[in-house]
Amino acid sequence: MKNRIFTTALVALAFALLGNVVRAQEINRQKSPQFDSPVIEADNTVTFKVHTPTAQTVAINGSWMGWGETLELNKGAEDVWSVTVGPLEASMYHYNFLIDGVSAIDPKNAHALRDGVRYASMLIIPGEKSEIFEINDVPHGTLSKVWYDSPSLNLNRRMYVYTPPGYESSNEKYPVFYLFHGGGGDEDAWTSLGRANYIMDNLIAEGKAIPMIIVMTNGNAFQTSSLKTAPDAPELTRENYRQYSGLFEKSLVKDVIPFIENNFRVKASKENRAIAGLSMGGGHTVTATTEYPDVFGYIGVFSAGIWEGSTDMEEKFTALKSSGINLYWVGCGIDDFVMDSNLRLLDVLEKTNIEHVYHESSGGHTWANWRDYLSIFATKLF
Amino acid sequence: MKNRIFTTALVALAFALLGNVVRAQEINRQKSPQFDSPVIEADNTVTFKVHTPTAQTVAINGSWMGWGETLELNKGAEDVWSVTVGPLEASMYHYNFLIDGVSAIDPKNAHALRDGVRYASMLIIPGEKSEIFEINDVPHGTLSKVWYDSPSLNLNRRMYVYTPPGYESSNEKYPVFYLFHGGGGDEDAWTSLGRANYIMDNLIAEGKAIPMIIVMTNGNAFQTSSLKTAPDAPELTRENYRQYSGLFEKSLVKDVIPFIENNFRVKASKENRAIAGLSMGGGHTVTATTEYPDVFGYIGVFSAGIWEGSTDMEEKFTALKSSGINLYWVGCGIDDFVMDSNLRLLDVLEKTNIEHVYHESSGGHTWANWRDYLSIFATKLF
Repeated sequence: MKNRIFTTALVALAFALLGNVVRAQEINRQKSPQFDSPVIEADNTVTFKVHTPTAQTVAINGSWMGWGETLELNKGAEDVWSVTVGPLEASMYHYNFLIDGVSAIDPKNAHALRDGVRYASMLIIPGEKSEIFEINDVPHGTLSKVWYDSPSLNLNRRMYVYTPPGYESSNEKYPVFYLFHGGGGDEDAWTSLGRANYIMDNLIAEGKAIPMIIVMTNGNAFQTSSLKTAPDAPELTRENYRQYSGLFEKSLVKDVIPFIENNFRVKASKENRAIAGLSMGGGHTVTATTEYPDVFGYIGVFSAGIWEGSTDMEEKFTALKSSGINLYWVGCGIDDFVMDSNLRLLDVLEKTNIEHVYHESSGGHTWANWRDYLSIFATKLF
Repeated sequence: MKNRIFTTALVALAFALLGNVVRAQEINRQKSPQFDSPVIEADNTVTFKVHTPTAQTVAINGSWMGWGETLELNKGAEDVWSVTVGPLEASMYHYNFLIDGVSAIDPKNAHALRDGVRYASMLIIPGEKSEIFEINDVPHGTLSKVWYDSPSLNLNRRMYVYTPPGYESSNEKYPVFYLFHGGGGDEDAWTSLGRANYIMDNLIAEGKAIPMIIVMTNGNAFQTSSLKTAPDAPELTRENYRQYSGLFEKSLVKDVIPFIENNFRVKASKENRAIAGLSMGGGHTVTATTEYPDVFGYIGVFSAGIWEGSTDMEEKFTALKSSGINLYWVGCGIDDFVMDSNLRLLDVLEKTNIEHVYHESSGGHTWANWRDYLSIFATKLF
């Protein structure tokens, strides 16, 4: 967390250079005990600290822990509370403090990220397994927030577009990979929690993936973007939500793809289009590829599958098979609560004789798995 | 804060659709009291709430309050603490709770933003004065995070580039406006706190500004980006910081401008280049335009000026004048602590007979002012 220290110093210095309130800053600093949080030790144990003289309970919830699980911090000298966890495996994690039950990001950690409606502090444990999503000294692609009209949804909407290193300075055309988030997420998720842009930078630099464009849409058909719900969106009851079924997939094929193919230098053919998504986005992938079997050559379903009560699946997958596909890739964690859906998908793929790759990993419904699946799937494209 | 409610509902529904943990979610919801925060009333008073059974003190610090000032929340029924403030003027604000002294974003508010090392919850009070930076139903430009090589700093660095609506689908060339953040900020600041992209969307849609490209760099010469300090950056003492003096401005002229002019469709001439910055970025603007007087036609200095102890200023401004400039625009708040520097700048402009516009606003060193200054300055460009 070297960055934080430098930036804090810069704030003080910027004021110092202005020659004004630096004394106030210095007095402030003397009042508060000095410490860093989090601190990663050589053995990958991590110590978290927070300063509060009056709290009754301070706890932490981290993504390395179970759902809803918490761990108490202990009060030490100068009212600094702390706890040491791990050693943690090299990976990216997020965590929150609970100060008397109130969820808070770590005030000493300058790096936070948003998972839908919730902010959490970010923690990267360096190591071999983290290299694939770190900001390494390699050429970086451009990540753009692009707005487009969606007549299918009657909305102007926002998506992220990753163009690979060299896109701006070349005249080449590139294949396109459409990549979807899960329930509770939005168009930010694959580049904040998913680090998709850095994963692609690294895979391309190593020659493991070919340069491609990645399009990350907002899969919530009632939102213009993570920032804004559609002005006339109905109250989101389960009944209303069902009205949106298939609408996002329609907007993808009718609105997003034409926009991308008109505004970016793109190879516009089935064998140059890939699609994948996690959880709800895996559902979007299954629906989009069965409803529009001629559009995507490469298909990836991450931690998802076929929901209970889906009908005509064998028929639809038979049609998909006869339309011809380049790759059908399925990934799921053995502990994932969507395993039943995943097994239903594998079953249909078997029954309809669709050649497919099944990657069963450890773990459950986690971003650690989805970053891994992307890192594998992207190397098999185009 | 309608968006938050919808998204929370979606999280629950996404799980419900997966048919699994919805019961756990429902039990959770029954345990916690139900409320929203913040709630903006018709008269623009705002009520903030947070739930904690055990906290000793809960307070709030908001950007509408004085520096370091706090206001206590009061504990009410079901351990929900609350306070009502205002009425607040239509504007964008940010705030933090202090839960037993620990800074926390509002757990019920899905919108937060980062100001350097600190996250805060975002609050927009709608109204006439907010329309200029809101996400309105107008065409939106593209906002891209672009990495470029800076030989001057020996770093690969990140900047934001705003391209106006229609850029991707046209063959037109555009003028370029280089826009800088202040001390403690980074390349994110002008589009998070500053809403520069939405301000430009709105000005262009109303025909008040012409379509242009905006380039927002990271002005901290020791950082590759907001995410990462340079690996070999020295410890940031005041002495070391002085080493960086002039280096950012050199990298701007030698590295950033050539990169932009090689990779974007740009009108590459002095009268098609504008430059402006706030606070430290205003200092960067003064230095860049005096050191490189032939580069920028339009100059804006926001809440900054000439620091005490600067030398040869009349000489440098005389050279700038004789190189020819299209506009010199200065903005400062009457309560701003940089007023002395601002007055020194105005004095040099007078003494060297440089025609200039001086906009003295109410208020101090605030983003409310900087958004305003941008909204005015951008209409006068090109």
